[in-house]
Amino acid sequence: MSYFNLEKIQFEGTGTENKFAFHHYNPDEVILGKTMREHLRFAVAYWHTMVADGSDPFGEGTYRRDQDIKGSTPMEVAKYKVEVFFELLDILDIDYFCFHDVDIAPQGNSLEEFFDNLDEITDLIKEKMDKTGKKLLWNTANMFTHPRYVNGAATTTNAEVYAYAAAQVKKGLDISKKLNGENYVFWGGREGYESLLNTDMQFELDNMARFFQMALDYSEKIGHQPQFLIEPKPKEPTKHQYDYDAATTMAFLQKYDLDEHFKLNLEANHATLAGHTFEHEMTVARSYNALGSLDANQGDLLLGWDTDEFPTDLYSATLAMYEIIENGGIAPGGINFDAKLRRTSMDKEDFILAHIAGMDTYARGLKAAARLKEDRFFEKILEERYQTFQDDLGQRILNNEEDLESLSKLALSLSEVKVDSSHLEYYRSLLNDYLV
Amino acid sequence: MSYFNLEKIQFEGTGTENKFAFHHYNPDEVILGKTMREHLRFAVAYWHTMVADGSDPFGEGTYRRDQDIKGSTPMEVAKYKVEVFFELLDILDIDYFCFHDVDIAPQGNSLEEFFDNLDEITDLIKEKMDKTGKKLLWNTANMFTHPRYVNGAATTTNAEVYAYAAAQVKKGLDISKKLNGENYVFWGGREGYESLLNTDMQFELDNMARFFQMALDYSEKIGHQPQFLIEPKPKEPTKHQYDYDAATTMAFLQKYDLDEHFKLNLEANHATLAGHTFEHEMTVARSYNALGSLDANQGDLLLGWDTDEFPTDLYSATLAMYEIIENGGIAPGGINFDAKLRRTSMDKEDFILAHIAGMDTYARGLKAAARLKEDRFFEKILEERYQTFQDDLGQRILNNEEDLESLSKLALSLSEVKVDSSHLEYYRSLLNDYLV
Amino acid sequence: MSYFNLEKIQFEGTGTENKFAFHHYNPDEVILGKTMREHLRFAVAYWHTMVADGSDPFGEGTYRRDQDIKGSTPMEVAKYKVEVFFELLDILDIDYFCFHDVDIAPQGNSLEEFFDNLDEITDLIKEKMDKTGKKLLWNTANMFTHPRYVNGAATTTNAEVYAYAAAQVKKGLDISKKLNGENYVFWGGREGYESLLNTDMQFELDNMARFFQMALDYSEKIGHQPQFLIEPKPKEPTKHQYDYDAATTMAFLQKYDLDEHFKLNLEANHATLAGHTFEHEMTVARSYNALGSLDANQGDLLLGWDTDEFPTDLYSATLAMYEIIENGGIAPGGINFDAKLRRTSMDKEDFILAHIAGMDTYARGLKAAARLKEDRFFEKILEERYQTFQDDLGQRILNNEEDLESLSKLALSLSEVKVDSSHLEYYRSLLNDYLV
Amino acid sequence: MSYFNLEKIQFEGTGTENKFAFHHYNPDEVILGKTMREHLRFAVAYWHTMVADGSDPFGEGTYRRDQDIKGSTPMEVAKYKVEVFFELLDILDIDYFCFHDVDIAPQGNSLEEFFDNLDEITDLIKEKMDKTGKKLLWNTANMFTHPRYVNGAATTTNAEVYAYAAAQVKKGLDISKKLNGENYVFWGGREGYESLLNTDMQFELDNMARFFQMALDYSEKIGHQPQFLIEPKPKEPTKHQYDYDAATTMAFLQKYDLDEHFKLNLEANHATLAGHTFEHEMTVARSYNALGSLDANQGDLLLGWDTDEFPTDLYSATLAMYEIIENGGIAPGGINFDAKLRRTSMDKEDFILAHIAGMDTYARGLKAAARLKEDRFFEKILEERYQTFQDDLGQRILNNEEDLESLSKLALSLSEVKVDSSHLEYYRSLLNDYLV
Repeated sequence: MSYFNLEKIQFEGTGTENKFAFHHYNPDEVILGKTMREHLRFAVAYWHTMVADGSDPFGEGTYRRDQDIKGSTPMEVAKYKVEVFFELLDILDIDYFCFHDVDIAPQGNSLEEFFDNLDEITDLIKEKMDKTGKKLLWNTANMFTHPRYVNGAATTTNAEVYAYAAAQVKKGLDISKKLNGENYVFWGGREGYESLLNTDMQFELDNMARFFQMALDYSEKIGHQPQFLIEPKPKEPTKHQYDYDAATTMAFLQKYDLDEHFKLNLEANHATLAGHTFEHEMTVARSYNALGSLDANQGDLLLGWDTDEFPTDLYSATLAMYEIIENGGIAPGGINFDAKLRRTSMDKEDFILAHIAGMDTYARGLKAAARLKEDRFFEKILEERYQTFQDDLGQRILNNEEDLESLSKLALSLSEVKVDSSHLEYYRSLLNDYLV
Repeated sequence: MSYFNLEKIQFEGTGTENKFAFHHYNPDEVILGKTMREHLRFAVAYWHTMVADGSDPFGEGTYRRDQDIKGSTPMEVAKYKVEVFFELLDILDIDYFCFHDVDIAPQGNSLEEFFDNLDEITDLIKEKMDKTGKKLLWNTANMFTHPRYVNGAATTTNAEVYAYAAAQVKKGLDISKKLNGENYVFWGGREGYESLLNTDMQFELDNMARFFQMALDYSEKIGHQPQFLIEPKPKEPTKHQYDYDAATTMAFLQKYDLDEHFKLNLEANHATLAGHTFEHEMTVARSYNALGSLDANQGDLLLGWDTDEFPTDLYSATLAMYEIIENGGIAPGGINFDAKLRRTSMDKEDFILAHIAGMDTYARGLKAAARLKEDRFFEKILEERYQTFQDDLGQRILNNEEDLESLSKLALSLSEVKVDSSHLEYYRSLLNDYLV
Repeated sequence: MSYFNLEKIQFEGTGTENKFAFHHYNPDEVILGKTMREHLRFAVAYWHTMVADGSDPFGEGTYRRDQDIKGSTPMEVAKYKVEVFFELLDILDIDYFCFHDVDIAPQGNSLEEFFDNLDEITDLIKEKMDKTGKKLLWNTANMFTHPRYVNGAATTTNAEVYAYAAAQVKKGLDISKKLNGENYVFWGGREGYESLLNTDMQFELDNMARFFQMALDYSEKIGHQPQFLIEPKPKEPTKHQYDYDAATTMAFLQKYDLDEHFKLNLEANHATLAGHTFEHEMTVARSYNALGSLDANQGDLLLGWDTDEFPTDLYSATLAMYEIIENGGIAPGGINFDAKLRRTSMDKEDFILAHIAGMDTYARGLKAAARLKEDRFFEKILEERYQTFQDDLGQRILNNEEDLESLSKLALSLSEVKVDSSHLEYYRSLLNDYLV
Repeated sequence: MSYFNLEKIQFEGTGTENKFAFHHYNPDEVILGKTMREHLRFAVAYWHTMVADGSDPFGEGTYRRDQDIKGSTPMEVAKYKVEVFFELLDILDIDYFCFHDVDIAPQGNSLEEFFDNLDEITDLIKEKMDKTGKKLLWNTANMFTHPRYVNGAATTTNAEVYAYAAAQVKKGLDISKKLNGENYVFWGGREGYESLLNTDMQFELDNMARFFQMALDYSEKIGHQPQFLIEPKPKEPTKHQYDYDAATTMAFLQKYDLDEHFKLNLEANHATLAGHTFEHEMTVARSYNALGSLDANQGDLLLGWDTDEFPTDLYSATLAMYEIIENGGIAPGGINFDAKLRRTSMDKEDFILAHIAGMDTYARGLKAAARLKEDRFFEKILEERYQTFQDDLGQRILNNEEDLESLSKLALSLSEVKVDSSHLEYYRSLLNDYLV
């Protein structure tokens, strides 16, 4: 079958003649000793690509893809979608994919039926994976769409709902084992509160930690231990989510002695909703040795909700790729396009065009980051800026050989300190030359 | 001397005839077994009251107080201010006060001169304290105004600046011992970054932790161990401050094994700048057993900077006081009015009026919170909402007797769960009746 | 039939014993010479009450109302909803209601079928209105949900879509005539842009003005001229909407000479999304003689989207009611509860409870505003604050008898001016005494 | 004299070897038929360059420039600053400059003394201008810093303050005539409110309009009519400023019949504080034929205050320059760097480096915009997107030959409309190729 009617996208240099070509991404090009494919580890998100319909809180779906994805039963539709999805992976030459349980199989009329459907669809997916070599970056359980999760899943107010959530995560880990998932993600869209007036935060957080521990235990028991990831987001759909940002999540993980077992799946648009840049969140995660994986997209800083746009900003992509280089790579995580087409980009070819846009943007970011690294652009700035910590006094401080009394004595003997200019405007202008 | 020309403010019931009277605050009134004085532990901030002049980034100072606080030398002015300040404490019948080192004494031409000045002024303050019974809630070192701290103090790029900061904190702890301070505060206005492009966050955070450890060590050595407090703020003056909010600060403290020794000084306006309500920050702090003290003020949620307004919002004051009650009180912390007069409230009598406004607001908040507690308003909501965790299944979960497999088996046996309505609109309307 | 199984809600004083009673709203109570019913002119919104299901961008509907509103055809459901809706109006003792065309009738398979359905349903509504005395505050055309309106209606990129929009508005005005609507509303949810990169703003605004003129012409032609209202909103669903706020809308109306014919329908949550308070938007509208009607709700200032919560904030309700009093009333407009139940308030009784909460809140606001008016609270503040404009110089300025030269000469002769303190903190504290 | 010790900055291609060189700006290079000098009309702001000291609300000044700008009297300092300023204009090869009255001359002890000082300094400036050919882009009166303006100038609560403001503006216009200013600017930093509780908005706006009319009258009388400009800003220092954004200002100007006589001076960072992009504000202004001049800078969208950073964002600069090209140029306005050095860029050479950064950024923006124009990049997108308005129906609509009835009849005859995809992601990716 061919749904998109396109050959695999080719690399075509920087001309703009052919809409369906990469102008910057070339998977086999070697940069800093690795291929772009190895650096970037792109993934396609099943939900935006096969499930989303372009609807928003005030409007019906617009995507025309849905007009010709048909079937006489929900399972037939689900199977057809698997075919289409793998065709897309092939066209885009992307190795990885991600999904929630509810994305791939109909929920039917009972949990049992849902699990049976999942078994059948994951059989098909496994077959496709074996044939094509595509790999599962991560899967997760959707514990936020169904009305039962209105008050949370692991932080629900209702013990039976907690059991449902446990059942979904158990199944998710079983699927992860079956499909050899490299990571497993928790995003707590409903783990938080609508109002503090009726919330016992302490109780709910205890339950969330307990839930994560159960997942660790089960993972160990079945002998499949993917990298566990938590995806922070400050708000939306819930008014206030517990995994607000990277630092908040690390506070929680440390408190419950879970920090050895979890890393973070960071999303650009979630960072900005929390008041941070994407690179800030990545830097924070690295400082806790917890940079796990990325959801690559971009938001609109003049809007207050998650727009999940395909990433096209060269500044953000460059700085994100620089963080990945500093991290020694993102594996076993990857760069997942958690991005949806604008409501006005409703043609099925837009799925191709938007992924090309995102991949080319990150390819440009990688190239720029590599040039910055090769020129030691940031290293030189930092070395100059912190140079006094290489001197005697600085070294004694860093070696814990000073205390308040000794430092006070020293300070009383000093004439005033001259702090060096950062020349920030100058360096920002230089940075522009690297983005080209 | 008499600067304000006012007797001590009296409690006068709810009439509004006399501007200079409390209509809601009555220090000796007993509520939930303690006097209002004991519950509220109000403090006056030296900086807003004796130093601020009403200037803003676009305007010169306006406060008329400055017209008649005079002296022929900076030290004479500083001493006169001590007199005025203690008169204000007396008039307002407030027991506690707070200051930065630079608020109380001129910095002179050298660190040595500054420290000498501090010695002389703190002698005077001590004398005043002994005479009046007023107490030091907390002091702190201002390590953000002087140009040397342009890149931070404990997180500076310059080792000699680090030494200056150490000297100031050593002196601050010596003063705390001398004046028997109940707490000692760190607010890192410059501990953060202007730009990530030239910042080594990991290096700076290591240095900050090292600095805090030095303060703990010195405190132990001199045999004076006030409650140490960190005051979170997300931004301003620095673009991004490391102590972003309560959770971020707890992540840091845990990472460096400092969480046993520090609690949080939470400010209402800092909470909202970080995207949280005041009560959220208090709840988070309580969940880490880290609610230390409060800076009571309010911001304007339509503005993006710290307005430090005197608190008059009854919703916020009520919920804050409820958290304090739940915490078993705020001592050894207190409720410090980190609030400045509007630029248009420039008369010296406004210092009195604004404090009355703030104290009456918190007094009303305390009364409302006590009624909510007596009626078990929130307890009843919570008990009903989480009731299923009192049942068998809920108890087994809470006792860690369930795992993913057992819960999955259970969920597969359930028919769909019915989650109860929260009736949130109804409870919000009821809450209004308690504010009265 | 009885869907809610409740008698009409009674006024019960300030006790809180009975959930289903007004504690503050008493329609027949006379305040400032008019009944509360006349002051408040409450309206129920058909969309939130009969159509919304509690879904959000990440979750399915939760409202249990939908479980027992059934019918074997869409038209049967639509008719049943009319019955339920009028029962709700009766229970709440609310006189007015509002709807979009798509709220009341199924759209069927063609525009013709939709219009036929509208005719049939509005026959039924008219019959109900005649029987009960309930009145149509306003109706409007939903030109944002259907995919054809993805790029706008009056500002669409497609001429045929423009024709569809015209057809819907013509039908809307026909219905307004049939049901004797007192106002007719335009809310341009899609009138704006997703991106400026592909937008000709000037062209689109010309088309929007042309569209409004057509509506005026048709209204005149059919001899039914309701008050026309435009409802500003800055963003959501569209990234940037042309009717950003009150002032922006007035700029547009003046530019196209439409300001004589339109007033504004202001919504509290739209105000805050645009960076304003509700009372600011009302004051701006009044300054253009354009305060038309209100959508009463409240948002969450820590969130960046339209939460449409039932109003419970006493500060906002009081200041809004004060503006209405200053405006000489809100008629022919009213106070429409454009508010939706929280997703967690899913029981059908919550529709009753939430409306009681909103009505009681506005009743309290009215009472507080009346007390402020009776005491001339604000008048006295203003008179004192602007008193110099009652003096000679002030009067000459106001009478246009001064110019730059005469004023400059005067200023050169003055010694420095003393501006009076606003004592803002004091007045804010006094205001609290009026609220409760 | 030579303060900066630098020759005029040269154009040096795209190498980054020499810090003190333009890599993209070449004043004599011809683009789209005009030199870059003619397109860009850069101006230096006297206040940031000669007055600002790097202080912020929490910190003292840091700029080292101040250490060697000395004099034995304030007037000597002021004169020395004129020398330094013109040296900077020469080094940067910038033709224009802008100032507030208080920037250039000390205010002394009376208005008369201030005016005398202004006369003396403007004599010197005039002499410099005659000698160097530098030109005054605009001047303005600072009516926000002095405490008398705490409640506004043209919207003050005090009639005598109104007279002071009139005197300053009269003097400003006299200076404009003397120095042949091409524009005259009003920025109403204090024209707005701290709180609506004590504000009569209608009264204040009437006074503001009256004030502007006086300025127009005086300008006509003295026979010097620069382009009058109003600079919108939503907030800061005032909580809510009347000239909130471009649209709000146009509403005001139309209401008072002033729109023929005023255009807008738009600032990038003010746009974002109001929730808009810079290019949005420019487009709105153009739609009212009111694009007057630009304050080029950039803000930080994660902060809520005016950071006034030197512009380095290539996206914003490109779109701004595209708007200028569409406007047929910005003359008699210009591009004024209303930008201040970061507090950490404290060396005097940073004034040079930061201006180079800003000029190079706008030069790159101009080049990118010219390429977009030459390729008809945006024109082609728009032509395709609005193509149906070239057809019969579209043309009849645009020619006002349709009405609701005729369009309704047409719509009823149509089968469903197919709206074309905008392919927004694809175009955003193409745009990247133009930037670099």
